[in-house]
Amino acid sequence: MPALMGQMMQMPLLISSLIRHAARHAGDTEIVSKRVEGDVHRTTWAGIEERSRRFAQAMARLGCGAGDRVATLAWNGYRHLEIYYGTSGSQLVCHTINPRLFPEQIAWIANDAGDRVLCFDLTFLPLVEKLAPHLGGVQHYVLMTDRAHMPASSAIANLLCYEELVDAEDGRYTWPEFDENTASSICYTSGTTGHPKGAVYSHRSSVLHAYGSALPDAMDCSAADVVLPVVPMFHVNAWGLPYSTALVGCKLVLPGPHLDGKSLYELFEAERVTFSAGVPTVWLGLLTYVQSNDLKFSTFRRTVIGGSACPPAMMKTLQERFSVEVIHAWGMTELSPLGTLSKLKAKHGALPREEQQRLLEKQGRVVYGIDMAIIDDDGHALPWDAKASGNLVVRGPWVIGSYFNRPESPLVSVDGEPGWFPTGDVATIDADGFMQITDRSKDVIKSGGEWISSIDLENIAMAHPAVHEAAAIAARHPKWDERPLLVVVRKPGASLTREELLAFYEGRIAKWQIPDDVAFVDELPHTATGKIQKLKLRELFRDHRLPA
Amino acid sequence: MPALMGQMMQMPLLISSLIRHAARHAGDTEIVSKRVEGDVHRTTWAGIEERSRRFAQAMARLGCGAGDRVATLAWNGYRHLEIYYGTSGSQLVCHTINPRLFPEQIAWIANDAGDRVLCFDLTFLPLVEKLAPHLGGVQHYVLMTDRAHMPASSAIANLLCYEELVDAEDGRYTWPEFDENTASSICYTSGTTGHPKGAVYSHRSSVLHAYGSALPDAMDCSAADVVLPVVPMFHVNAWGLPYSTALVGCKLVLPGPHLDGKSLYELFEAERVTFSAGVPTVWLGLLTYVQSNDLKFSTFRRTVIGGSACPPAMMKTLQERFSVEVIHAWGMTELSPLGTLSKLKAKHGALPREEQQRLLEKQGRVVYGIDMAIIDDDGHALPWDAKASGNLVVRGPWVIGSYFNRPESPLVSVDGEPGWFPTGDVATIDADGFMQITDRSKDVIKSGGEWISSIDLENIAMAHPAVHEAAAIAARHPKWDERPLLVVVRKPGASLTREELLAFYEGRIAKWQIPDDVAFVDELPHTATGKIQKLKLRELFRDHRLPA
Repeated sequence: MPALMGQMMQMPLLISSLIRHAARHAGDTEIVSKRVEGDVHRTTWAGIEERSRRFAQAMARLGCGAGDRVATLAWNGYRHLEIYYGTSGSQLVCHTINPRLFPEQIAWIANDAGDRVLCFDLTFLPLVEKLAPHLGGVQHYVLMTDRAHMPASSAIANLLCYEELVDAEDGRYTWPEFDENTASSICYTSGTTGHPKGAVYSHRSSVLHAYGSALPDAMDCSAADVVLPVVPMFHVNAWGLPYSTALVGCKLVLPGPHLDGKSLYELFEAERVTFSAGVPTVWLGLLTYVQSNDLKFSTFRRTVIGGSACPPAMMKTLQERFSVEVIHAWGMTELSPLGTLSKLKAKHGALPREEQQRLLEKQGRVVYGIDMAIIDDDGHALPWDAKASGNLVVRGPWVIGSYFNRPESPLVSVDGEPGWFPTGDVATIDADGFMQITDRSKDVIKSGGEWISSIDLENIAMAHPAVHEAAAIAARHPKWDERPLLVVVRKPGASLTREELLAFYEGRIAKWQIPDDVAFVDELPHTATGKIQKLKLRELFRDHRLPA
Repeated sequence: MPALMGQMMQMPLLISSLIRHAARHAGDTEIVSKRVEGDVHRTTWAGIEERSRRFAQAMARLGCGAGDRVATLAWNGYRHLEIYYGTSGSQLVCHTINPRLFPEQIAWIANDAGDRVLCFDLTFLPLVEKLAPHLGGVQHYVLMTDRAHMPASSAIANLLCYEELVDAEDGRYTWPEFDENTASSICYTSGTTGHPKGAVYSHRSSVLHAYGSALPDAMDCSAADVVLPVVPMFHVNAWGLPYSTALVGCKLVLPGPHLDGKSLYELFEAERVTFSAGVPTVWLGLLTYVQSNDLKFSTFRRTVIGGSACPPAMMKTLQERFSVEVIHAWGMTELSPLGTLSKLKAKHGALPREEQQRLLEKQGRVVYGIDMAIIDDDGHALPWDAKASGNLVVRGPWVIGSYFNRPESPLVSVDGEPGWFPTGDVATIDADGFMQITDRSKDVIKSGGEWISSIDLENIAMAHPAVHEAAAIAARHPKWDERPLLVVVRKPGASLTREELLAFYEGRIAKWQIPDDVAFVDELPHTATGKIQKLKLRELFRDHRLPA
């Protein structure tokens, strides 16, 4: 017997439906932007939608058609938001590029993506002028500003002015309807090794991610919120906030280029921000400013912190001193990016505060849509006992199936079941589904079949007053295969011996996990985004002989 | 140029993914049921999933295959939940029937749906024994109980025992993967005129509805909640709560057949319920019990009230006396059912409490996924000014496109754009998108091109101390086409004249809206679900002559 089909309306999940919803049901809700030009700009969801339509018309006039990639090098602002919706809504593909990458990486990424148009903020004019000769496929350069701010001359021939393009159109444009699996945007990973790889999101995946990320156990977004994404719109689509804020129709505050403590604090207060999201470093700057000036937050109530692990002390300060709820989150470019967030269940309500805190410090539980597992190197699932640590794999409708321009599948199997994406993270999971990242899989030290977390070893070293920076890497060992080697930069003027540092580990970690040796160096190698290049370190210390 | 396709994992939105998620990530979270058998039963999401798989196996053993309809006549309980997931998850179609309908209606519905299996609670054995001879297509009758509670004999040949069926299977069953547009369940409308009509939900529509309904601006469900759906699982799938609670993995409390104030209160307290949902009548019973016994709620914090308009006095009591947030909602079977809920926006935070209250008393704003418009009888969109009232139309991925077994399309156009579902309600919408139902479209009184709300007229009449019940209907008028006629039942022993009642309207409503006449009757005709049958009233008073 054939299956019975549902008789529901067939409406594709399109990004244009998000901006239409916001314009229609929250039309006068404000979008406030700190502009690169220096002032504060105010518009509304209706205004954004209208200009997104004009931007779509302008791109069509430039000859762009379905599937063409339009790249951005831009801060968080209303024009960037218009490009998000104007491109995806008209079946173009929005490619946000991280301007903090090395210029050669940016050029490589733009060429790999096949970008046809590049839109950029005034800030990046010198950068783009240098890049342009290397961007063979880019036919149009659009400076995201008005006529008054356009340069008198530029190394870029035919530099276009964003406001002129938008002003020339009438906005009489109907968002087209098409397959929800069409590409909506591309983001590149900033891999520490090899070339960056492109994740090609679809309209369907972006809309489902917007639903999932707005849920109470995720970012908890509602129309009662005022949301300020500190996380850049060039960093995995600002964790989806440009979409989820449209979905709930709330006020959006876009901070532009200045993310120092003073600038952020003043914007939080002036615009009555209730919710924000960003990496730990940003909160450090904000907290330092607020504490040293003895200030308080009037409306700020909760924040999502992700990108890297949030130091427990920072969580404590935000929660206890400022009554700001910290939602610790984990995700990655390949996950659009949301994977897990740490929110308590009803059963945890009666736990002592300290135990609750320990749960909140983990990376947390999956949002419905994502499933996860931890596996050993043979692909066997490991138990969820908060002890076994293994390679974290995920799947779901907003997880990539493959990378752009890469024919090989990155997916792996779990106990023979194919279709899981290997995150490259090593984690534990407890019986309640709380996941905790313990390492990157390529950094974990495999000693006699047991895994030692390089992060744990580094955290202990960093707690020593004479240590400026430390990295734990695997060194070859004839009996145990690998044993931990600590590479350490001393604080200026500090003295510290190998024996003193190793003694510092006693009682802080299991004896067999204590590093076998310490190498002191003047500095550690870093990537453009500030991560330690452990691959380079491993190469440098390939021939290091551990003491017997 | 062909469009670029996304490169995300292709995973269909299936109802089985909800129960798998709950079992995997909230496996030990409790499902508590007050049983028809009298006791309290406790299981978990993992337990429900395991027995759902066995139920799916049992149905296959009975010969059921993809698309077959399995009907239920059952209260809110764990077995009903297992049937929800066991049927839909295995590509059968779950057809929940409202046992409060007249037996002839139940038979008509079961035959129209082509039900092949009927599962029912002990309570309904006498009903089903009477119905069985009229259910030609039903091949298997399953009594939802254990062997000990099976009747010694029954008019139904080969009556099957639910627990025996489930016990006979081993649960080694993998949820199949199939097209997300496959039918998952059927609910029939309880129309006041003509035969009931079937809405055929799909897996896709049910999962999207679950996402939308759990959002902070909707039911705001999280894993920190303990949810008790008072709304029956035979009433539009308990407003989707069996799905949205699995989506968030929260504790679920199913109250069984006893919905009186005392039973509910004791369950709320014993199980630490934080959130509930139901029609106004239920809350009346609960509030009466709690107030007359001078009790308080320890954990109950918010409730969704829908199905019919919530009296403002009830909202006030719940909010002010018991600190229970009331979320006023509107929906219908054809919308799965959620359409709008009333939650304030950030801009309303500074309004005086009384103005906030007036907004909260409206039916509210759409959840993303639903769009709405109000139109005049010619299909032209009317302004959102809180004054113009028109026919409410909606669209979205969880709105029906057509009815089961009905070839004609119910959809209409808005300003020439096709594809909108006419709700049969008349409403206003304000500039912020807050919708307020003013009438049913077939009940509105059209006087000289202006619309008069029958509900407004009835509310005023009901406020008169001598009125027991009142209905306002349209009477033919030579000049104005229609003018309001009030049909009234006096309170026992009360005296009230036409002139006294009409004088009562002075100052309470615009002069031209005051009814032209009053007809006193002994009783009003009602449907099985307690609604006034206005069609019958209009027939009775077809020849009524209004005074000149």
